[in-house]
Amino acid sequence: MDRNSANENRTPVTVLGLGPMGQALAGAFLKAGHPTTVWNRTLAKADALVAQGATLASTVVDAVTASPLVIICVLDYNAANAILAPVGEALKGRTLVNLTADTPERAREMAAWAAARGIDYLDGAIMTPTPTIGQPTAVVLYSGPEAVYEANRPVLASLGGTAAHLGADPGRAAAFDVALLDIFWTSMSGYVHALALARAENIAAKDLAVYAQGIVHIMPDIMTEFARHVDDGHYPGEKSNIVSAAAGMEHIIHAAEARGIDAGVLSAAHAVARRAIDAGQGTNGFSLLAELYGKPSA
Amino acid sequence: MDRNSANENRTPVTVLGLGPMGQALAGAFLKAGHPTTVWNRTLAKADALVAQGATLASTVVDAVTASPLVIICVLDYNAANAILAPVGEALKGRTLVNLTADTPERAREMAAWAAARGIDYLDGAIMTPTPTIGQPTAVVLYSGPEAVYEANRPVLASLGGTAAHLGADPGRAAAFDVALLDIFWTSMSGYVHALALARAENIAAKDLAVYAQGIVHIMPDIMTEFARHVDDGHYPGEKSNIVSAAAGMEHIIHAAEARGIDAGVLSAAHAVARRAIDAGQGTNGFSLLAELYGKPSA
Repeated sequence: MDRNSANENRTPVTVLGLGPMGQALAGAFLKAGHPTTVWNRTLAKADALVAQGATLASTVVDAVTASPLVIICVLDYNAANAILAPVGEALKGRTLVNLTADTPERAREMAAWAAARGIDYLDGAIMTPTPTIGQPTAVVLYSGPEAVYEANRPVLASLGGTAAHLGADPGRAAAFDVALLDIFWTSMSGYVHALALARAENIAAKDLAVYAQGIVHIMPDIMTEFARHVDDGHYPGEKSNIVSAAAGMEHIIHAAEARGIDAGVLSAAHAVARRAIDAGQGTNGFSLLAELYGKPSA
Repeated sequence: MDRNSANENRTPVTVLGLGPMGQALAGAFLKAGHPTTVWNRTLAKADALVAQGATLASTVVDAVTASPLVIICVLDYNAANAILAPVGEALKGRTLVNLTADTPERAREMAAWAAARGIDYLDGAIMTPTPTIGQPTAVVLYSGPEAVYEANRPVLASLGGTAAHLGADPGRAAAFDVALLDIFWTSMSGYVHALALARAENIAAKDLAVYAQGIVHIMPDIMTEFARHVDDGHYPGEKSNIVSAAAGMEHIIHAAEARGIDAGVLSAAHAVARRAIDAGQGTNGFSLLAELYGKPSA
């Protein structure tokens, strides 16, 4: 079968950056039938994709001019800026989708850079691990002009799973990304800390993991409830309040310190609960601390 | 119908302490048909249970001598000790199940106190909220002599859901409890912090909560994997390593601090990752930190 005719209704896509995530993205576009051009500073990383039908561009300009839609996914915005700065003119009239993770500020700066050059720009955040890309479990968040998102949605759907457009502010996807990774890394830090505590008590990690999953299962309902409290600005403490939470934290901190285990993470969390108690707010629900984290301590 | 004949195969149970959890426990024993005696320092807390058929004892001695099985669930071990110390003789030959939460050390101390007085002792930890008691979703962990657990298992099954005997060491249930609450409170601290970040970006808490639940859904598999690493003492970093985790944490810390949001919790977690990197262990998986939390910093 003639490859061009098979692909005639498929939008060409360029992927800049072929780390594990970039490779997964390019692979998903290829699998969906899009003519895919790839570029990476180290060309050898393209070998597997070229074997699957990707076109390897030897320069960034060649890569960018090969497609109306250019995806970049590299280590950070410093790397993205270094790659994109010389090809601002070549990107004019094309769509640039930046899936590199960084802060909302940097997403907005890059959006301004793109706007000044007549480049349609979307900023995105990939919320799920590399193996999910192209699968039903992938979650990718986008922000930027709605018309740009709508025009590119069919192609971006190749990445699989759930895609969501969060709004016109280009920093919005990064803001969600930062907040969600905050939950992830803080929780994972709590988990490895709990594994350290278990280890000190000769509890096998796999035995703790079974019950740890039980703890995870009760979180979604509590998260929904806390979110309602924060949106309402009303923090009911009848079922459980900041005083009892702080007492629970103290048990854990003492148990850790008695075993020579660093308790800095939970001690920092406890200090914020303590501030609430000292301010006479201890009978409110724990969700009140969402307000307190953003207020300077007295 | 004569109440005694209806209950003749039911073991009498005494519940000391009628806070929200104590009330839930007594209610579950009553519902399962056990003659239930209750005691609380403030007698009025027993009113609803008495209306459901509980017998109110006016002294701790009367309460303890009413049943072969005595459950205590109060604020902490200081409160438990104050209640139990005067009735050590009266408890001789009975079973005492302590569902008060505290550290493994205090559970072991109380087990030794009970053993010296000829009291069969189990220490327990209730892992699920009050409304789950008596329901299929309840999770209660026990530790202490297996024969004592087996003899009382049918009555304790009235509390519903999953009951597990974790071993003969009376501190084991408390050790699981402390480690599991560590995960819970650290994760919840991360969540309210993320709500503070979202708030600073004008993201409604309910909008973040939807994606936060997606983050929670990816945790169980990662927990299982990390537990395997810790049990094996081998921390593969091919998919994700400590260096990349630390970089991700730095984005979040910078984003928080730029908004005047206290980043102490994640900064403490980052410091431990940083120690691993400084020790040349940055290319290992994040799970390695379970070892590092228990080692003094250089």
